[in-house]
Amino acid sequence: MASISDPRVRDFLLQGTRTGMLAYTASDGRPLAAPVWFTVEDDEIVLNTGKETAKGRSIARDPRVALTADLPEPPYAFVQVQGEARVSEDTDELVRTATAIARRYVGPEQAEEFGRRNGIPGELVVRVRPTKVIAAFDMTD
Amino acid sequence: MASISDPRVRDFLLQGTRTGMLAYTASDGRPLAAPVWFTVEDDEIVLNTGKETAKGRSIARDPRVALTADLPEPPYAFVQVQGEARVSEDTDELVRTATAIARRYVGPEQAEEFGRRNGIPGELVVRVRPTKVIAAFDMTD
Repeated sequence: MASISDPRVRDFLLQGTRTGMLAYTASDGRPLAAPVWFTVEDDEIVLNTGKETAKGRSIARDPRVALTADLPEPPYAFVQVQGEARVSEDTDELVRTATAIARRYVGPEQAEEFGRRNGIPGELVVRVRPTKVIAAFDMTD
Repeated sequence: MASISDPRVRDFLLQGTRTGMLAYTASDGRPLAAPVWFTVEDDEIVLNTGKETAKGRSIARDPRVALTADLPEPPYAFVQVQGEARVSEDTDELVRTATAIARRYVGPEQAEEFGRRNGIPGELVVRVRPTKVIAAFDMTD
């Protein structure tokens, strides 16, 4: 089994603006996946979402999620992080994580604006503690 | 609601080597997502997988899946296709679809080899008929 603390896994997850696809379930149990912006802190996946979004409501029902990131070109590769999500509504943590995540995806100039926009009531900090990590690199080499 | 027959949605799904993240459930109901190579035929998502893989077993238990593809850089965009999967083990269809899909992802020179490799007993043609399509383009514009 791979580990999120493995530098190659961690570097892959944090490469550029690579997004994560968050797998979660709808209320009828059907599986869904939606792209999310995320970072890695303390060997956990960290992302933000709204409490009343499909993702937020899903996590409240069932904390089991998976985040998968891939390299969609040769030599192809992916990392899948299965885990359990827990949420926080702490405003300072919301602003801090939203700013850090925005810095990755929209750059430092817009990061503060995005951080403020997401650091408001109704938004969540979601932390996913890995329970199983699968990594496959250089799949077509 | 978006539609897979919308040229913008279809072109987005078929752009270059863009992969799809297939969301499915494990036997305990937890959601998973794994990257797949796919194409679009007759307004359906078409992919191959092994009958005894996690994906193949999941579809046999519950045909509900979602395939999400995204643009992981500004202006960011994604298409999520929720649908019902059905499978076929027809050898001619296996070879034909595996070759067509490989042409997209590894190029024409290796397509025949990949097609032959996947056109064998135990492999499946999976067709996902869309039940709901969500598209979001130019998310940070």
